[in-house]
Amino acid sequence: MDTNPVIAVDAMGGDNAVKLVLQGVADALQEDHELRILLIGNKEVVEPFAAKHQRVKPLVSHSVIEMDEAPAEAIRQKKDSSIVMGAYALKNHEADGFFSAGSTGAVLAATTIYTGRIKGVKRPAITFMLPGKRPITMLDLGANADYKPEHLVQFAHMGTAFARTVIGVENPEVGLLNIGSEETKGSMQLQEVYGLFKAQVKNFKGNAEGSDLFANTFDVIVTDGQTGNITLKTIEGTAKFLMTELKDALMASTKAKLGALLLKDSLYSLKDLLNADKYGGGYLLGVKGVVIIGHGHTSARAVKNGIVSAAKAVREGLVEQISELIAQSNDSTGTINS
Amino acid sequence: MDTNPVIAVDAMGGDNAVKLVLQGVADALQEDHELRILLIGNKEVVEPFAAKHQRVKPLVSHSVIEMDEAPAEAIRQKKDSSIVMGAYALKNHEADGFFSAGSTGAVLAATTIYTGRIKGVKRPAITFMLPGKRPITMLDLGANADYKPEHLVQFAHMGTAFARTVIGVENPEVGLLNIGSEETKGSMQLQEVYGLFKAQVKNFKGNAEGSDLFANTFDVIVTDGQTGNITLKTIEGTAKFLMTELKDALMASTKAKLGALLLKDSLYSLKDLLNADKYGGGYLLGVKGVVIIGHGHTSARAVKNGIVSAAKAVREGLVEQISELIAQSNDSTGTINS
Repeated sequence: MDTNPVIAVDAMGGDNAVKLVLQGVADALQEDHELRILLIGNKEVVEPFAAKHQRVKPLVSHSVIEMDEAPAEAIRQKKDSSIVMGAYALKNHEADGFFSAGSTGAVLAATTIYTGRIKGVKRPAITFMLPGKRPITMLDLGANADYKPEHLVQFAHMGTAFARTVIGVENPEVGLLNIGSEETKGSMQLQEVYGLFKAQVKNFKGNAEGSDLFANTFDVIVTDGQTGNITLKTIEGTAKFLMTELKDALMASTKAKLGALLLKDSLYSLKDLLNADKYGGGYLLGVKGVVIIGHGHTSARAVKNGIVSAAKAVREGLVEQISELIAQSNDSTGTINS
Repeated sequence: MDTNPVIAVDAMGGDNAVKLVLQGVADALQEDHELRILLIGNKEVVEPFAAKHQRVKPLVSHSVIEMDEAPAEAIRQKKDSSIVMGAYALKNHEADGFFSAGSTGAVLAATTIYTGRIKGVKRPAITFMLPGKRPITMLDLGANADYKPEHLVQFAHMGTAFARTVIGVENPEVGLLNIGSEETKGSMQLQEVYGLFKAQVKNFKGNAEGSDLFANTFDVIVTDGQTGNITLKTIEGTAKFLMTELKDALMASTKAKLGALLLKDSLYSLKDLLNADKYGGGYLLGVKGVVIIGHGHTSARAVKNGIVSAAKAVREGLVEQISELIAQSNDSTGTINS
């Protein structure tokens, strides 16, 4: 693996884009001295920035896919957009990774269709790390609302590859998100998935419950994109609610205000714990390149972390590891690669 | 409606049962001076207690359904258990409500089969209140892992009845838990539900997301039992994780410890906010009686609150309101009552 990864960065993505993205790129270059950037965006944005930064190559795009555009149509009509050009940069090996804080649907569609899936992968999936003493790789978080049981088996393999390379757990333990620990729990479809996992996922440790998401009991938790998306937003909503209530509690009396002052540093670290900026965004697994999709409401810190994480994943061989596990799995089950 | 409701209480339910349950019953009798209790359990438990408390009638049961027994079989084989006798007490109008902290599956099966469903109700559902300025009625939380779209329509009507009577919202706004606000979001099945809601649920306000669970945007949020169960446990897991991290943060330094001391009262109210004890448990909607299922790890406070809530729901006419809304809905859609 090349130790000087090139990460393509969508300069136009995100609600507040450009300025924040450029700041994030500058910070990433400072943190990772081997990193190279392919900066994709309007001419007047990317050329002056590249002129000032040695390891940045500009790539001029001519349109922007907006957050509310229908993804499938947008990527067909806007071939000269920053997102579609990023997907082609991966395909043509001009970049090893791609970071965009633009439309999740458009990045997903463009990289799936134009960059292409890893051989044997039926459906890409979005993954996200949950914090804790034992960080959890959770997937799928929204790439697929409808699913077939065999898709979830592939998610288990891709999640295992992710936990090995990006998180550094040699032998990740896999759980299936369900409503109880017994094999007979959940919908008929989920029970079918359980059977496939038992037969095909080497390190499957049984069903996980919602309460296992922060309990240090699994390394990888697999679910369908609809449940995963709802779960992730529930976590965010619960955390936001509790932090707001905590803030109110801290302002409730003079005594409390004084206490809050003394606790400032400790509470800051708590707030940071569930801050998505820390990880830069979600990884799209299953396409031929490292793809990170940032939050729409991104920050310079999230952009920096996303780019640095992408470079790390390239160095650790995330795509190669997924490719290997999927090939092994398809060989052993006699599945025809498609 | 009789203003002196009789609540049947399962004295044998819960991991730590008997002592906690009896304490909870005594506290409930103190709080609600009109309340009457039908206390079901072993002779040596219920008779001495009834002898000491005026408004308590004992009902002797001869077996206990354990937490890990298969519900369908257990309720057939143990007709003299506290749970089955509670279900029959509702059926025979010896009680208006039933509180048990025993096996959720067994209470669900016993009341569905022996007490019976309200006319026209296809599937009972479990509901739970989420806290906040505008409390949310969320259902189903685990009664049904597989579902048909029309079941979710009935859950919307039952949730509306619950929010009206128990929470006191005259015109509850209903949301459908999904992965985005647009009509085209989610699985094919969920899109079908959306269409039915638009046609049949009067106060339907569109899709709700995980982040809406604490955002004061809806009064009732409907989902299938599998997603609901995972969501509820995710909320509990996230809250537990954050409270543990908060505790660690408060112990991190001498300065922080001093701050924590000043904040003790304020933080206690925060911790209490997501404490399930506050509500006593989940309501089972759709059967002919008010049924509350407590947490297995119950407390005297949860038992007390569960019993008092059940009495309130009886007085407010929860069952009659569900019956009315389901009948109206079945009339207007031409559904044959079954």
